[in-house]
Amino acid sequence: MQLNTLGVVHDFLARCVKPGSFCIDATAGKGRDTALLCRLSGEAGRVLAFDIQQDAVNATNKLLQEQGLCARVILDSHANMEQYAQPETVDCVVFNLGRLPGGDPKIFTQAPSTLTAIDAALRLLKEGGVLAIALYYGGENGYTERDAVLEHLKALDDRRYTVLLCDWANRRGEPPMPIFVWKEH
Amino acid sequence: MQLNTLGVVHDFLARCVKPGSFCIDATAGKGRDTALLCRLSGEAGRVLAFDIQQDAVNATNKLLQEQGLCARVILDSHANMEQYAQPETVDCVVFNLGRLPGGDPKIFTQAPSTLTAIDAALRLLKEGGVLAIALYYGGENGYTERDAVLEHLKALDDRRYTVLLCDWANRRGEPPMPIFVWKEH
Repeated sequence: MQLNTLGVVHDFLARCVKPGSFCIDATAGKGRDTALLCRLSGEAGRVLAFDIQQDAVNATNKLLQEQGLCARVILDSHANMEQYAQPETVDCVVFNLGRLPGGDPKIFTQAPSTLTAIDAALRLLKEGGVLAIALYYGGENGYTERDAVLEHLKALDDRRYTVLLCDWANRRGEPPMPIFVWKEH
Repeated sequence: MQLNTLGVVHDFLARCVKPGSFCIDATAGKGRDTALLCRLSGEAGRVLAFDIQQDAVNATNKLLQEQGLCARVILDSHANMEQYAQPETVDCVVFNLGRLPGGDPKIFTQAPSTLTAIDAALRLLKEGGVLAIALYYGGENGYTERDAVLEHLKALDDRRYTVLLCDWANRRGEPPMPIFVWKEH
């Protein structure tokens, strides 16, 4: 396992996404996570990916095509994901919050739509399903979204959800936090 | 994986301790982690276990015997572990800090010897080796040791160590924190 957030999140996904899973990449970006979810859920699986930028949708479709993979890539806000899936049917939702890794540092997700999207994702999850978040913060994005997300997750009812926050405690440079939320059975 | 600290730590150990590993259980207690380290490191491995209570040494030896496993169980403080192993030879060190799970709530580890033991463990680790900590706090133990451990780990040089702190962010009842420290190559 690579000792960074991507390594921790991908290692986690590789262990929890099974062939046939229904997965959502809430922040498609360049499509790297979308492609991983397609590989892990396999031919019998189903993957939706969301991005509000046409460039990201194009880049994701291009990557999937190059790798012979298939997902439905949707040009819409992840805050609207409930328009595209039924409640309690999704096994796994992945978010990269804050800036896009390797993308334009001036474009980032924002607290209000992020919190709406997280709540939508939690409603879409099956019992036993999981949310995996890489929470970027600092830089031009600042701390408002991070603090709002952390407060929101800390307030989730622990009879319905289990939240595990991870932090690279001694790393300089404000590395993203890996966060996992399980929906209880 | 069980969604608690023991589940997270044991899952982690199962993936990083290989046959032939040299492991240390810094807080033997009832011997549960010692037995796990013996099983994971196998016939070719080696396990030391420390406890300052004779009862714990006896309980650990009894459990190992029942399970047909073998470790050297030492009646001494984990702060002295460098007297029993060479520097940079150990693959994995496990600590349960704070109260002993299932044990007497009035007996717990204390910050000064804990910090000494953590530093000793870090010196004993090979490059690529790992420290796994279940950090109990609250109750009669309070927060002094927890805060001292967290401060100490946050101050570790990030060119030599990677520290991942995990926290059950929405759980009531102050569950222990799983913590992992890798020694860099």
